[in-house]
Amino acid sequence: MGLFSKDIATLQDLFLHQLQDVYYAENQITKALPKMIEKATAPELREGFETHLRETEGQIRRLEKAFDSLGEKPKAVTCPAIDGIIKEANETAGEIADKAVLDAALIAAAQAVEHYEIARYGTLVAWGQQLGHGAAVALFEETLAEEKATDEKLTQLSTRANAKAEAVGADA
Amino acid sequence: MGLFSKDIATLQDLFLHQLQDVYYAENQITKALPKMIEKATAPELREGFETHLRETEGQIRRLEKAFDSLGEKPKAVTCPAIDGIIKEANETAGEIADKAVLDAALIAAAQAVEHYEIARYGTLVAWGQQLGHGAAVALFEETLAEEKATDEKLTQLSTRANAKAEAVGADA
Repeated sequence: MGLFSKDIATLQDLFLHQLQDVYYAENQITKALPKMIEKATAPELREGFETHLRETEGQIRRLEKAFDSLGEKPKAVTCPAIDGIIKEANETAGEIADKAVLDAALIAAAQAVEHYEIARYGTLVAWGQQLGHGAAVALFEETLAEEKATDEKLTQLSTRANAKAEAVGADA
Repeated sequence: MGLFSKDIATLQDLFLHQLQDVYYAENQITKALPKMIEKATAPELREGFETHLRETEGQIRRLEKAFDSLGEKPKAVTCPAIDGIIKEANETAGEIADKAVLDAALIAAAQAVEHYEIARYGTLVAWGQQLGHGAAVALFEETLAEEKATDEKLTQLSTRANAKAEAVGADA
């Protein structure tokens, strides 16, 4: 996008910009998840991240279908938000030695990612509906439901992970 | 936090780190909101942002009370996530000439901020409960309810804003 011109003239332009932003974000998430799988210790958390990696790959294909339904080629624009969320996750993880505490931190980081996606797909649904892009909206809604389910799953996993993480402090 | 040591040893350390991160984030949000108020055109959106600015100031005071309840001094640690979310909001806003399209983008940006906070306060509640920090948890829950209400209010405002933004394209 140009630094010296205003490239977003209409809601349609804004919608497409957001779609490209989310496409970038999902691709960054598929790069971040394998590192989170490596760092995770609890088997149910590793499995959860593995499942979410496959889901995210499916979500990228859905975004490509959405671009196609709009007569556009898939394109990514850098999304400082997801870069910041992932950077923060890595920095925090780098400060943690204990595996149980790290699991608790990984879940929190994943939930920050999920909430970013919930916000963005919610916006894409609203703008797509306003613009009459029914096919794309149906794809976004499918992904939005998955992201919400993943967030709930992470909340479930956190109960046990937090209890194990607290036991670390109790041992010390 | 040190680059050459692992500073987070326990869930209590992680909890405090997250609290410092959210304290930084809320302070950045109070700096970002006046600029969003300036950019917003629809009176109900300006009012919504003004209300949220006052709310955010109250949320900062609540965080200070939470620090106090833990016997800690309020401290902020840089939060790349909120910096990224605000950077992205500014970059996108900078690309938009039309005021109605800008309003739609500002609402979307504010919802990304809200969802970041919803994720973080949700985590603080869970960790605080695990660690038995009842007084702090009650404060986080109060703010969490406000953030969710603000997100819903923004969704309501978006219906009219998106319709006005789409009319820009129709005029062109």
